Amino acid sequence: MTTPPSTLFDYVLGLADDALVSAQRMGWWISRAPELEEDVALANIGLDQLGQARALLTYAGAVEGAGRTEDDLAYLRDDREFRNVWLVERPQADFAVTIARLLVLATWQSELYVALASASDPTLAGVAGKAVKEVAYHVDHARLWTLRLGDGTEVSHLRMQQALDAEWPYVEELFAPTAGALVDPGALREGVLGRVEEVVVAATLSVPQVAPAIGGGRRGLHTEHLGHLLAEMQHLHRSHPGAVW
Amino acid sequence: MTTPPSTLFDYVLGLADDALVSAQRMGWWISRAPELEEDVALANIGLDQLGQARALLTYAGAVEGAGRTEDDLAYLRDDREFRNVWLVERPQADFAVTIARLLVLATWQSELYVALASASDPTLAGVAGKAVKEVAYHVDHARLWTLRLGDGTEVSHLRMQQALDAEWPYVEELFAPTAGALVDPGALREGVLGRVEEVVVAATLSVPQVAPAIGGGRRGLHTEHLGHLLAEMQHLHRSHPGAVW
Repeated sequence: MTTPPSTLFDYVLGLADDALVSAQRMGWWISRAPELEEDVALANIGLDQLGQARALLTYAGAVEGAGRTEDDLAYLRDDREFRNVWLVERPQADFAVTIARLLVLATWQSELYVALASASDPTLAGVAGKAVKEVAYHVDHARLWTLRLGDGTEVSHLRMQQALDAEWPYVEELFAPTAGALVDPGALREGVLGRVEEVVVAATLSVPQVAPAIGGGRRGLHTEHLGHLLAEMQHLHRSHPGAVW
Repeated sequence: MTTPPSTLFDYVLGLADDALVSAQRMGWWISRAPELEEDVALANIGLDQLGQARALLTYAGAVEGAGRTEDDLAYLRDDREFRNVWLVERPQADFAVTIARLLVLATWQSELYVALASASDPTLAGVAGKAVKEVAYHVDHARLWTLRLGDGTEVSHLRMQQALDAEWPYVEELFAPTAGALVDPGALREGVLGRVEEVVVAATLSVPQVAPAIGGGRRGLHTEHLGHLLAEMQHLHRSHPGAVW
């Protein structure tokens, strides 16, 4: 498939922003997880995602050909220029929500990166090939916690179910048609949902039956939460432009 | 030197809390550093410190012999029971402050861990021996940024100097006599200050001439900032006691 540069730019940016925004949300946990070991685990997952984001942003800058670096793309775009899905941008101050979201996101990334690893674009294939191993660990981490909480106490079961219910409206956007996609998002739907639902059922939880949210992140339409996240993320860089103050 | 268990407990706890509290402050940067690469670097430094804290807390629990785990010690102590120095507990929302503090803390840890690695306590020697390599990297990271900012623009020079001035009152507490210390804190003073001041001068900055703060962290006396940090750090664990909610 031949994709015009600007469309490829948008596509790569979308994948980069999914990882970047998720990494920021994950980093919030570094001082707040329920166990010290979990602090380390969630921070490491966030750092994996940040690494993926950096590689993808660097490639997006090269595709665009206007000289923008990873830092320019991370720190100097407004929210309307971000291309991430809504799933990753909402707050995740609840531990069960963090796990539910990671289960969905990482399973989706797992299927996507496997497919991209044999795509015709060698750079993207390389980035995806490296990320496959990382997201496999993320899926496993989310799966173990989903089982532990779902099949745990009455309270943990209830909270894990509420978390799944809260995240579910944002699942469908992952599979919506996307301009310039090197892997058809719709083709991933069955594989991703099959794997996620298997974990949900094994954890004695129910697959939520909810209407999908509107979405629109791939077109630059975002919830107010992204604006707040970017205000924090971009403040220091924008206050002191350039590498040195 | 033979140390009664309770004194050794306090000593190990002090080192653990220095690393733990610093890790929490480092984690704050995961979404806020001036460059994406720096996000990763500071988060990794925080994770190294968290790893040191976990090993030290686990050992402190074993020394105490009352069955407390690393999580019990991290999440279920009040601020008066924490033994960290004041240097690490104050906010570090300023990037230059973060670098100045890391330069001091990591250089001190570097000298301390080298000495502890040949101490008569094999567990502590093992933990310290492993940490030596980690803190050597932390020192180098802080050194490079101090040089870059000190010898950078007029603004960066000014802000780095202000940061050193702000941290300096808290340096002396690192060298105060400590009950049960396996390495005499005062014996580290010359080596630590010599290395730090060499970097400060090479960065065209001045060694601050300021009166030391009162300190008292090793005896459980803390600034209000530690209470706020612990409120965030311990909230989730205390809301949901035990491994599962």
